[in-house]
Amino acid sequence: MATLCRPAIAVPEHVITREETLELARTLHANHPQLELALRLIGNTGVQTRHLVQPIEDTLQHPGFTTRNNIYEAEAKARVPAVIDRALENAELTVQDIDMIVYVSCTGFMMPSMTAWLINTMGFRNETRQLPIAQLGCAAGGAAINRAHDFCSAYPGSNVLIVACEFCSLLYQPTDLAVGNLLSNGLFGDAIASAVVRGDGGTGVRLEANGSHLVPDTEAWISYGVKDTGFHFMLDKRVPGTMAMLAPAMRDMAEPHDWDVSDLDFYIVHAGGPRILDDLGKYLELEQHMFRYSRQTLVERGNIASAVVFDALERLFQDGGAEHAARGVIAGFGPGITAEIALGTWSGRVGGGSSNGHKKASAGRNSSVTLPA
Amino acid sequence: MATLCRPAIAVPEHVITREETLELARTLHANHPQLELALRLIGNTGVQTRHLVQPIEDTLQHPGFTTRNNIYEAEAKARVPAVIDRALENAELTVQDIDMIVYVSCTGFMMPSMTAWLINTMGFRNETRQLPIAQLGCAAGGAAINRAHDFCSAYPGSNVLIVACEFCSLLYQPTDLAVGNLLSNGLFGDAIASAVVRGDGGTGVRLEANGSHLVPDTEAWISYGVKDTGFHFMLDKRVPGTMAMLAPAMRDMAEPHDWDVSDLDFYIVHAGGPRILDDLGKYLELEQHMFRYSRQTLVERGNIASAVVFDALERLFQDGGAEHAARGVIAGFGPGITAEIALGTWSGRVGGGSSNGHKKASAGRNSSVTLPA
Repeated sequence: MATLCRPAIAVPEHVITREETLELARTLHANHPQLELALRLIGNTGVQTRHLVQPIEDTLQHPGFTTRNNIYEAEAKARVPAVIDRALENAELTVQDIDMIVYVSCTGFMMPSMTAWLINTMGFRNETRQLPIAQLGCAAGGAAINRAHDFCSAYPGSNVLIVACEFCSLLYQPTDLAVGNLLSNGLFGDAIASAVVRGDGGTGVRLEANGSHLVPDTEAWISYGVKDTGFHFMLDKRVPGTMAMLAPAMRDMAEPHDWDVSDLDFYIVHAGGPRILDDLGKYLELEQHMFRYSRQTLVERGNIASAVVFDALERLFQDGGAEHAARGVIAGFGPGITAEIALGTWSGRVGGGSSNGHKKASAGRNSSVTLPA
Repeated sequence: MATLCRPAIAVPEHVITREETLELARTLHANHPQLELALRLIGNTGVQTRHLVQPIEDTLQHPGFTTRNNIYEAEAKARVPAVIDRALENAELTVQDIDMIVYVSCTGFMMPSMTAWLINTMGFRNETRQLPIAQLGCAAGGAAINRAHDFCSAYPGSNVLIVACEFCSLLYQPTDLAVGNLLSNGLFGDAIASAVVRGDGGTGVRLEANGSHLVPDTEAWISYGVKDTGFHFMLDKRVPGTMAMLAPAMRDMAEPHDWDVSDLDFYIVHAGGPRILDDLGKYLELEQHMFRYSRQTLVERGNIASAVVFDALERLFQDGGAEHAARGVIAGFGPGITAEIALGTWSGRVGGGSSNGHKKASAGRNSSVTLPA
């Protein structure tokens, strides 16, 4: 048994609005032949605000990959520990209770990984397993949950800490001018998420089964160019249509467990863009209301990569959670094209309150506070 | 139950000898104030030959990170599938039997990871889990074995394919002139390794337990500078002394299982350099003969990063394996400083031959053939 507990989220203090984004695009790309298309695409995302680790003036500079990656490291070290503290508090555990740290991030690269620094700095046991994953992109949030679930299955009673640290704004490439780049520049945001998968006890999503699916021959649809100037995000225009392939994959994954993926109680899915949510509604025959948490994440924070599923899940907690034993799905989508899918049931606090009624999360605590740098 | 089957290894066709390495160092660094020290350190490694993905003239060029990483991708795609085919053959499985691919490499970066390309190109099932790990360096070979073991514990009967693809020569940085860099330039080699961890059956190392250990406050001892020019390997002069901390960690990990780490039948450890093997002998009170497979890897191939443990293990297979139920340890060491340790017993073929005598691996097949590019 493994329960994904309430995530902690932090977004940086620098905010850019939809209007500012559109105005910037108009200014920076005044002569771009497809400016109008880009503006329409950005407008259609529905993103209202995004948070950035640097002021927009600095975000628009490219100081070179060396400096960019140094900024990543400094910002991660300054911001991640407080988020972990809150995730541990949410799970009612301490650093000493953690058996593995899964650290996912596709927006900076460190060797040794942040896991070593976290163990040294925050007092995790030296025996804590380290699982840094840099190459699963936006699907890494789902992958982190699934590998944590597997670990708790292998070692019953163990606890896994997940950290998703995504500073997408550090991947801004001013010379990349394809429409997909202009759209990405108006879509992605920065955020840090952390959550504990508890092997015993805990309130949240009890993980029942997980699966992965790679859509054949779509490697080039979402990819990085790895260059002297760092990681260059490349987005194919076919990506928004991916749910035509991934909705059936979700159905196929759920069926052997006798779950109907069109008849679940909650849906926590990667909000890569608005079309993903629109199409999931269409292909799974669901009201858009069922994707409200993911949609809120997209609207308020943009696409925050591997952190999306945690931010959306936190909103479910904030909303009071689901009924005990309610069924749901968590799905990360990313490069490959890969889906990492988890099936889970809502699990109320063991020994606390009614086990059949709506579980109210502990109120009043805003776990999405803005952290200073 | 999970059994690590016979690895397949491939080394590239371009060879550089000890003498050529020393001559190159003398020529390239004629005026280096610490040339004599560097030459002595390189000589002391005992490395006789190393294999490189490019001729030495090309290896010494730095065409920029963009080109370097493109070379990594092209060489990996050209060379990895044949090694996987042999690893599957060794395990008597096909691509369809594999449930997870763990791909470890710290010498190139791809998004999507090579796992997506391998699934598409080689016919693995689209549901195959992908676990790419780029940030555990030389410890990643041990980590791959341990995470594969965990996965088979979570899903009894499942099978995990491991690939370690290390083209260390693509990290040559001509402007890095510290003694540690000169030593590294004469120490590291290129290689690809692959092995299957079978959930049921198989001949090889039955994985009994695993653990990880981070030596406190040694993050800076082995690290990458991540720069416009790619990954810059940095080696602290304290690294060779690390076994003073890691030998006790190996002992502590084995003791709860009632294993005496100084009294095992086989030792497959990361041969990062000669001092690691010398010191393990000292601290574990063992004859150097016990580390002969790792030493052979070091002498014939240099430090091939995460691939070392597989190359050394392949030599144990080639030597006829161990007695049924013989106890051994596999340990990867890398940045952190992190050790990834596995305890295992030798497991003969189920239903084949004597279960108590020496198991002879299938003879005649050279699994270390040099592959063309």
